[in-house]
Amino acid sequence: MEKQVSQSVINRLPRYYRYLGELLSNGIERISSKDLSEKMNVTASQIRQDLNCFGGFGQQGYGYNIESLYNEIGKILGVNKTRNAILIGAGNLGKAVALHMSFEARGFNIIGIFDKNKALVGQLLRGLPIRHTDNLFDFCKDNSPTVAVLCIPSSAAEDLAPQLVELGIKGFWNFSHYDISANYPDVAVENVHLSDSLMKLSYHVSNME
Amino acid sequence: MEKQVSQSVINRLPRYYRYLGELLSNGIERISSKDLSEKMNVTASQIRQDLNCFGGFGQQGYGYNIESLYNEIGKILGVNKTRNAILIGAGNLGKAVALHMSFEARGFNIIGIFDKNKALVGQLLRGLPIRHTDNLFDFCKDNSPTVAVLCIPSSAAEDLAPQLVELGIKGFWNFSHYDISANYPDVAVENVHLSDSLMKLSYHVSNME
Repeated sequence: MEKQVSQSVINRLPRYYRYLGELLSNGIERISSKDLSEKMNVTASQIRQDLNCFGGFGQQGYGYNIESLYNEIGKILGVNKTRNAILIGAGNLGKAVALHMSFEARGFNIIGIFDKNKALVGQLLRGLPIRHTDNLFDFCKDNSPTVAVLCIPSSAAEDLAPQLVELGIKGFWNFSHYDISANYPDVAVENVHLSDSLMKLSYHVSNME
Repeated sequence: MEKQVSQSVINRLPRYYRYLGELLSNGIERISSKDLSEKMNVTASQIRQDLNCFGGFGQQGYGYNIESLYNEIGKILGVNKTRNAILIGAGNLGKAVALHMSFEARGFNIIGIFDKNKALVGQLLRGLPIRHTDNLFDFCKDNSPTVAVLCIPSSAAEDLAPQLVELGIKGFWNFSHYDISANYPDVAVENVHLSDSLMKLSYHVSNME
Protein backbone atom coordinates (compact mmCIF):
# COMPACT_ATOMS: atom_id res chain seq x y z
CA MET A 1 0.00 0.00 0.00
CA GLU A 2 2.95 2.40 -0.63
CA LYS A 3 1.21 5.62 -1.70
CA GLN A 4 2.67 7.54 -4.62
CA VAL A 5 4.09 10.40 -2.62
CA SER A 6 7.23 12.05 -3.97
CA GLN A 7 10.45 11.70 -2.03
CA SER A 8 10.71 15.48 -1.72
CA VAL A 9 7.34 15.66 0.07
CA ILE A 10 8.41 12.87 2.40
CA ASN A 11 11.65 14.75 3.03
CA ARG A 12 9.69 17.80 4.18
CA LEU A 13 7.17 16.01 6.43
CA PRO A 14 9.58 15.44 9.35
CA ARG A 15 10.35 19.17 9.36
CA TYR A 16 6.66 20.06 9.43
CA TYR A 17 6.16 17.56 12.22
CA ARG A 18 9.05 18.88 14.30
CA TYR A 19 8.02 22.46 13.81
CA LEU A 20 4.36 21.86 14.64
CA GLY A 21 5.48 19.95 17.74
CA GLU A 22 7.39 23.05 18.87
CA LEU A 23 4.38 25.32 18.29
CA LEU A 24 2.20 22.88 20.17
CA SER A 25 4.52 22.80 23.16
CA ASN A 26 4.43 26.62 23.13
CA GLY A 27 0.64 26.46 23.50
CA ILE A 28 -0.17 27.80 20.01
CA GLU A 29 -3.41 26.41 18.57
CA ARG A 30 -3.75 27.69 14.99
CA ILE A 31 -1.44 28.76 12.21
CA SER A 32 -2.02 30.03 8.67
CA SER A 33 -0.15 28.40 5.81
CA LYS A 34 1.46 31.82 5.29
CA ASP A 35 2.89 31.94 8.83
CA LEU A 36 3.87 28.29 8.65
CA SER A 37 5.64 28.97 5.36
CA GLU A 38 7.58 31.96 6.68
CA LYS A 39 8.85 29.99 9.65
CA MET A 40 9.70 26.95 7.58
CA ASN A 41 11.30 28.72 4.61
CA VAL A 42 8.92 26.96 2.19
CA THR A 43 6.30 28.76 0.09
CA ALA A 44 2.70 28.77 1.38
CA SER A 45 1.52 27.11 -1.81
CA GLN A 46 4.15 24.41 -1.35
CA ILE A 47 2.83 23.69 2.13
CA ARG A 48 -0.79 23.55 0.93
CA GLN A 49 0.24 21.27 -1.90
CA ASP A 50 2.26 18.98 0.37
CA LEU A 51 -0.52 18.64 2.91
CA ASN A 52 -3.09 18.11 0.17
CA CYS A 53 -1.20 14.96 -0.82
CA PHE A 54 -2.57 13.50 2.37
CA GLY A 55 -6.08 14.86 2.24
CA GLY A 56 -5.53 18.48 3.28
CA PHE A 57 -6.21 19.63 6.82
CA GLY A 58 -6.66 23.37 6.48
CA GLN A 59 -9.89 25.35 6.43
CA GLN A 60 -9.96 28.34 4.12
CA GLY A 61 -9.62 31.50 6.24
CA TYR A 62 -9.09 29.64 9.51
CA GLY A 63 -5.62 28.22 8.94
CA TYR A 64 -4.52 24.92 10.34
CA ASN A 65 -5.42 23.49 13.70
CA ILE A 66 -1.93 22.69 14.90
CA GLU A 67 -2.76 19.78 17.13
CA SER A 68 -4.78 17.91 14.55
CA LEU A 69 -2.26 18.67 11.80
CA TYR A 70 0.55 17.45 14.07
CA ASN A 71 -1.34 14.26 14.85
CA GLU A 72 -2.22 13.65 11.22
CA ILE A 73 1.36 14.11 10.04
CA GLY A 74 2.48 11.85 12.87
CA LYS A 75 0.10 9.18 11.58
CA ILE A 76 1.35 9.61 8.01
CA LEU A 77 4.93 9.26 9.24
CA GLY A 78 3.86 6.27 11.28
CA VAL A 79 5.52 7.60 14.42
CA ASN A 80 2.35 6.84 16.40
CA LYS A 81 3.05 3.12 15.97
CA THR A 82 5.57 1.14 17.93
CA ARG A 83 7.93 -1.26 16.25
CA ASN A 84 10.53 -3.32 17.98
CA ALA A 85 14.04 -2.49 16.90
CA ILE A 86 17.55 -3.71 17.59
CA LEU A 87 20.76 -1.72 17.55
CA ILE A 88 23.88 -3.40 16.24
CA GLY A 89 27.22 -1.87 17.10
CA ALA A 90 27.81 -0.30 20.50
CA GLY A 91 31.05 1.53 19.76
CA ASN A 92 31.33 5.33 19.91
CA LEU A 93 28.72 5.88 17.24
CA GLY A 94 26.28 3.21 18.43
CA LYS A 95 26.49 4.50 22.00
CA ALA A 96 25.79 8.05 20.89
CA VAL A 97 22.88 6.97 18.72
CA ALA A 98 21.46 4.89 21.59
CA LEU A 99 21.74 7.71 24.10
CA HIS A 100 21.00 10.69 21.88
CA MET A 101 17.95 9.63 19.89
CA SER A 102 14.32 9.74 21.01
CA PHE A 103 13.49 6.42 19.40
CA GLU A 104 10.18 5.99 21.22
CA ALA A 105 8.89 9.39 20.07
CA ARG A 106 9.62 8.29 16.49
CA GLY A 107 7.80 4.97 16.75
CA PHE A 108 10.70 2.67 17.60
CA ASN A 109 11.19 0.60 20.72
CA ILE A 110 14.80 -0.53 21.13
CA ILE A 111 14.61 -4.02 22.64
CA GLY A 112 18.14 -5.33 22.08
CA ILE A 113 21.66 -4.01 21.61
CA PHE A 114 24.45 -6.10 20.12
CA ASP A 115 28.17 -5.89 19.57
CA LYS A 116 30.80 -8.39 18.54
CA ASN A 117 33.29 -6.97 21.03
CA LYS A 118 33.20 -9.31 24.05
CA ALA A 119 34.58 -6.56 26.27
CA LEU A 120 31.32 -4.61 25.83
CA VAL A 121 29.00 -7.55 26.44
CA GLY A 122 27.00 -7.15 29.65
CA GLN A 123 27.51 -3.38 29.89
CA LEU A 124 24.28 -1.42 30.18
CA LEU A 125 23.30 1.02 27.44
CA ARG A 126 19.89 2.70 27.51
CA GLY A 127 19.16 0.35 30.39
CA LEU A 128 19.72 -2.69 28.17
CA PRO A 129 22.59 -5.13 28.49
CA ILE A 130 24.84 -5.25 25.42
CA ARG A 131 24.63 -8.75 23.96
CA HIS A 132 27.11 -10.57 21.77
CA THR A 133 26.18 -10.71 18.08
CA ASP A 134 26.38 -14.51 18.33
CA ASN A 135 23.02 -14.25 20.09
CA LEU A 136 21.32 -12.29 17.30
CA PHE A 137 19.70 -15.32 15.75
CA ASP A 138 18.08 -16.60 18.95
CA PHE A 139 17.09 -13.13 20.07
CA CYS A 140 15.35 -12.34 16.78
CA LYS A 141 13.59 -15.71 16.76
CA ASP A 142 12.26 -15.02 20.27
CA ASN A 143 11.45 -11.32 19.97
CA SER A 144 10.76 -10.67 16.29
CA PRO A 145 12.18 -7.16 15.91
CA THR A 146 11.30 -5.58 12.56
CA VAL A 147 13.88 -2.79 12.40
CA ALA A 148 17.67 -2.81 12.77
CA VAL A 149 19.91 0.17 13.42
CA LEU A 150 23.37 -0.56 12.02
CA CYS A 151 26.26 1.31 13.65
CA ILE A 152 28.91 -1.03 12.29
CA PRO A 153 31.49 -0.95 9.48
CA SER A 154 30.49 -1.83 5.91
CA SER A 155 32.11 -5.26 6.00
CA ALA A 156 30.14 -6.24 9.12
CA ALA A 157 26.94 -4.85 7.60
CA GLU A 158 27.54 -6.89 4.45
CA ASP A 159 27.89 -10.03 6.59
CA LEU A 160 24.88 -9.34 8.79
CA ALA A 161 22.33 -7.87 6.37
CA PRO A 162 21.34 -11.19 4.71
CA GLN A 163 20.88 -12.86 8.12
CA LEU A 164 18.84 -9.94 9.41
CA VAL A 165 16.57 -9.90 6.37
CA GLU A 166 16.14 -13.66 6.78
CA LEU A 167 15.25 -13.09 10.44
CA GLY A 168 12.42 -10.73 9.48
CA ILE A 169 14.01 -7.29 9.56
CA LYS A 170 11.93 -5.03 7.29
CA GLY A 171 13.72 -1.74 7.82
CA PHE A 172 17.27 -0.58 8.38
CA TRP A 173 18.60 2.64 9.77
CA ASN A 174 21.99 2.27 8.18
CA PHE A 175 25.04 4.22 9.35
CA SER A 176 27.40 1.94 7.43
CA HIS A 177 28.42 2.49 3.81
CA TYR A 178 27.17 -0.92 2.76
CA ASP A 179 24.46 -0.43 0.13
CA ILE A 180 21.60 -2.49 1.57
CA SER A 181 18.88 -1.33 -0.81
CA ALA A 182 20.91 -2.34 -3.87
CA ASN A 183 21.00 -5.89 -2.54
CA TYR A 184 17.62 -6.08 -0.78
CA PRO A 185 15.17 -3.94 -2.74
CA ASP A 186 12.22 -5.11 -0.62
CA VAL A 187 13.35 -3.68 2.68
CA ALA A 188 13.08 -0.05 3.76
CA VAL A 189 16.46 1.60 4.17
CA GLU A 190 17.33 5.01 5.47
CA ASN A 191 21.03 5.76 5.18
CA VAL A 192 23.06 8.16 7.29
CA HIS A 193 26.34 8.62 5.47
CA LEU A 194 28.27 10.88 7.78
CA SER A 195 31.51 10.80 5.87
CA ASP A 196 29.78 11.64 2.57
CA SER A 197 28.11 14.55 4.30
CA LEU A 198 31.48 15.79 5.55
CA MET A 199 32.94 15.53 2.04
CA LYS A 200 30.02 17.54 0.66
CA LEU A 201 30.80 20.23 3.22
CA SER A 202 34.40 20.14 2.06
CA TYR A 203 33.23 20.62 -1.53
CA HIS A 204 31.03 23.59 -0.67
CA VAL A 205 33.63 25.25 1.55
CA SER A 206 36.25 24.75 -1.20
CA ASN A 207 34.06 26.38 -3.77
CA MET A 208 33.52 29.43 -1.59
CA GLU A 209 37.21 30.03 -0.97
CA MET B 1 33.91 30.70 -8.23
CA GLU B 2 31.16 28.16 -7.34
CA LYS B 3 30.93 26.03 -10.47
CA GLN B 4 27.49 25.19 -11.81
CA VAL B 5 27.48 21.55 -10.79
CA SER B 6 24.16 20.02 -9.90
CA GLN B 7 23.51 18.93 -6.34
CA SER B 8 22.87 15.37 -7.49
CA VAL B 9 26.35 15.13 -9.05
CA ILE B 10 27.88 16.50 -5.86
CA ASN B 11 25.86 13.95 -3.90
CA ARG B 12 27.40 11.13 -5.92
CA LEU B 13 31.03 12.30 -5.81
CA PRO B 14 31.71 11.18 -2.22
CA ARG B 15 30.50 7.69 -3.13
CA TYR B 16 32.80 7.57 -6.15
CA TYR B 17 35.64 8.77 -3.98
CA ARG B 18 35.02 6.20 -1.25
CA TYR B 19 34.65 3.39 -3.72
CA LEU B 20 37.77 4.30 -5.70
CA GLY B 21 39.67 4.54 -2.41
CA GLU B 22 38.64 0.95 -1.63
CA LEU B 23 39.76 -0.28 -5.06
CA LEU B 24 43.04 1.55 -4.65
CA SER B 25 43.72 -0.01 -1.28
CA ASN B 26 43.01 -3.40 -2.90
CA GLY B 27 45.81 -2.70 -5.41
CA ILE B 28 43.52 -2.33 -8.44
CA GLU B 29 44.85 0.11 -11.05
CA ARG B 30 42.23 0.48 -13.79
CA ILE B 31 38.46 0.18 -14.07
CA SER B 32 36.03 0.58 -16.95
CA SER B 33 33.02 2.83 -16.49
CA LYS B 34 30.94 -0.33 -16.99
CA ASP B 35 32.56 -2.14 -14.03
CA LEU B 36 32.47 1.01 -11.93
CA SER B 37 28.78 1.42 -12.74
CA GLU B 38 27.92 -2.17 -11.79
CA LYS B 39 29.62 -1.85 -8.43
CA MET B 40 28.14 1.55 -7.73
CA ASN B 41 24.60 0.88 -8.90
CA VAL B 42 24.69 3.87 -11.26
CA THR B 43 24.55 3.60 -15.07
CA ALA B 44 27.83 3.74 -16.99
CA SER B 45 26.59 6.74 -18.96
CA GLN B 46 25.71 8.48 -15.68
CA ILE B 47 29.27 7.97 -14.44
CA ARG B 48 30.78 9.27 -17.67
CA GLN B 49 28.47 12.25 -17.57
CA ASP B 50 29.25 13.01 -13.92
CA LEU B 51 33.00 12.82 -14.43
CA ASN B 52 32.78 14.87 -17.61
CA CYS B 53 31.42 17.74 -15.52
CA PHE B 54 34.93 18.03 -14.16
CA GLY B 55 36.87 17.52 -17.35
CA GLY B 56 36.59 13.74 -17.84
CA PHE B 57 39.40 11.42 -16.84
CA GLY B 58 38.74 8.27 -18.87
CA GLN B 59 40.45 7.13 -22.06
CA GLN B 60 38.23 5.39 -24.58
CA GLY B 61 38.97 1.67 -24.43
CA TYR B 62 41.35 1.92 -21.47
CA GLY B 63 38.93 2.76 -18.70
CA TYR B 64 39.86 4.96 -15.80
CA ASN B 65 43.19 5.05 -14.04
CA ILE B 66 41.93 4.63 -10.49
CA GLU B 67 44.66 6.50 -8.69
CA SER B 68 44.44 9.59 -10.86
CA LEU B 69 40.64 9.54 -10.83
CA TYR B 70 40.70 9.20 -7.03
CA ASN B 71 43.11 12.09 -6.70
CA GLU B 72 41.14 14.27 -9.11
CA ILE B 73 37.85 13.66 -7.31
CA GLY B 74 39.62 14.33 -4.02
CA LYS B 75 40.73 17.69 -5.40
CA ILE B 76 37.23 18.50 -6.63
CA LEU B 77 35.85 17.64 -3.20
CA GLY B 78 38.62 19.71 -1.65
CA VAL B 79 39.57 16.93 0.78
CA ASN B 80 43.24 17.41 -0.16
CA LYS B 81 43.16 20.79 1.61
CA THR B 82 43.31 21.31 5.34
CA ARG B 83 41.00 23.70 7.07
CA ASN B 84 40.95 24.37 10.77
CA ALA B 85 37.69 23.39 12.41
CA ILE B 86 36.13 23.56 15.85
CA LEU B 87 33.62 21.17 17.38
CA ILE B 88 30.93 22.63 19.61
CA GLY B 89 29.07 20.28 21.91
CA ALA B 90 30.88 17.40 23.60
CA GLY B 91 27.86 15.45 24.81
CA ASN B 92 27.08 11.93 23.60
CA LEU B 93 26.74 12.99 20.00
CA GLY B 94 29.72 15.36 19.93
CA LYS B 95 31.94 12.74 21.55
CA ALA B 96 30.92 10.12 19.01
CA VAL B 97 31.45 12.52 16.11
CA ALA B 98 34.86 13.50 17.48
CA LEU B 99 35.99 9.91 17.95
CA HIS B 100 34.29 8.26 14.99
CA MET B 101 35.04 10.58 12.08
CA SER B 102 38.22 10.72 10.00
CA PHE B 103 38.21 14.50 9.82
CA GLU B 104 41.80 14.79 8.59
CA ALA B 105 41.16 12.43 5.65
CA ARG B 106 38.28 14.72 4.65
CA GLY B 107 40.28 17.93 4.79
CA PHE B 108 39.44 19.12 8.29
CA ASN B 109 41.78 19.62 11.20
CA ILE B 110 39.93 19.80 14.52
CA ILE B 111 41.81 22.36 16.60
CA GLY B 112 39.34 23.10 19.40
CA ILE B 113 36.42 21.45 21.20
CA PHE B 114 33.90 23.39 23.25
CA ASP B 115 31.01 22.72 25.59
CA LYS B 116 28.99 24.90 27.93
CA ASN B 117 28.94 22.15 30.56
CA LYS B 118 31.63 23.06 33.11
CA ALA B 119 31.83 19.43 34.24
CA LEU B 120 33.27 18.48 30.83
CA VAL B 121 35.81 21.31 30.65
CA GLY B 122 39.38 20.04 30.79
CA GLN B 123 38.51 16.47 29.80
CA LEU B 124 40.47 15.21 26.81
CA LEU B 125 38.66 14.30 23.61
CA ARG B 126 40.65 13.40 20.49
CA GLY B 127 43.67 14.50 22.49
CA LEU B 128 42.23 18.00 22.88
CA PRO B 129 41.05 19.54 26.14
CA ILE B 130 37.35 20.43 26.12
CA ARG B 131 37.09 24.20 26.56
CA HIS B 132 34.19 26.25 27.89
CA THR B 133 32.12 28.02 25.23
CA ASP B 134 32.89 31.30 27.04
CA ASN B 135 36.34 30.98 25.45
CA LEU B 136 35.05 30.65 21.88
CA PHE B 137 35.56 34.31 21.05
CA ASP B 138 39.20 34.47 22.15
CA PHE B 139 40.00 31.09 20.65
CA CYS B 140 38.60 32.04 17.25
CA LYS B 141 40.38 35.39 17.30
CA ASP B 142 43.68 33.63 18.00
CA ASN B 143 43.29 30.58 15.77
CA SER B 144 40.93 31.60 12.95
CA PRO B 145 39.07 28.32 12.38
CA THR B 146 36.91 28.43 9.26
CA VAL B 147 34.57 25.50 9.93
CA ALA B 148 32.36 24.66 12.93
CA VAL B 149 30.81 21.29 13.72
CA LEU B 150 27.66 21.86 15.77
CA CYS B 151 26.59 18.98 18.04
CA ILE B 152 24.31 21.13 20.16
CA PRO B 153 20.53 21.69 20.45
CA SER B 154 18.74 24.11 18.11
CA SER B 155 18.41 26.84 20.71
CA ALA B 156 22.16 26.84 21.37
CA ALA B 157 22.87 26.80 17.63
CA GLU B 158 20.57 29.78 17.17
CA ASP B 159 22.49 31.67 19.86
CA LEU B 160 25.95 30.76 18.60
CA ALA B 161 25.57 30.88 14.81
CA PRO B 162 25.63 34.69 14.50
CA GLN B 163 28.74 34.91 16.70
CA LEU B 164 30.48 32.17 14.77
CA VAL B 165 29.73 33.79 11.41
CA GLU B 166 31.03 37.07 12.82
CA LEU B 167 34.18 35.26 13.96
CA GLY B 168 34.90 34.07 10.43
CA ILE B 169 33.26 30.64 10.26
CA LYS B 170 32.53 29.93 6.58
CA GLY B 171 31.14 26.40 6.85
CA PHE B 172 28.99 24.48 9.30
CA TRP B 173 28.52 20.77 9.76
CA ASN B 174 25.22 21.11 11.51
CA PHE B 175 23.70 18.32 13.60
CA SER B 176 21.18 20.70 15.17
CA HIS B 177 17.77 21.45 13.70
CA TYR B 178 18.46 25.16 13.56
CA ASP B 179 18.22 26.29 9.94
CA ILE B 180 21.53 28.10 9.47
CA SER B 181 21.35 28.51 5.70
CA ALA B 182 17.97 30.27 5.89
CA ASN B 183 19.57 32.90 8.12
CA TYR B 184 23.09 33.01 6.70
CA PRO B 185 22.86 32.33 2.97
CA ASP B 186 26.57 33.09 2.44
CA VAL B 187 27.98 30.28 4.53
CA ALA B 188 28.27 26.64 3.48
CA VAL B 189 26.04 24.36 5.52
CA GLU B 190 25.78 20.61 5.50
CA ASN B 191 23.00 19.36 7.75
CA VAL B 192 22.76 15.98 9.44
CA HIS B 193 19.20 15.68 10.65
CA LEU B 194 19.20 12.36 12.45
CA SER B 195 15.69 12.59 13.80
CA ASP B 196 14.26 13.48 10.38
CA SER B 197 16.06 10.49 8.95
CA LEU B 198 14.53 8.24 11.61
CA MET B 199 11.05 9.61 10.83
CA LYS B 200 11.58 8.90 7.14
CA LEU B 201 12.45 5.33 8.04
CA SER B 202 9.25 5.19 10.07
CA TYR B 203 7.28 6.41 7.05
CA HIS B 204 8.81 3.83 4.72
CA VAL B 205 8.41 0.96 7.17
CA SER B 206 4.78 2.01 7.79
CA ASN B 207 4.02 2.00 4.11
CA MET B 208 5.41 -1.50 3.68
CA GLU B 209 3.32 -2.96 6.48
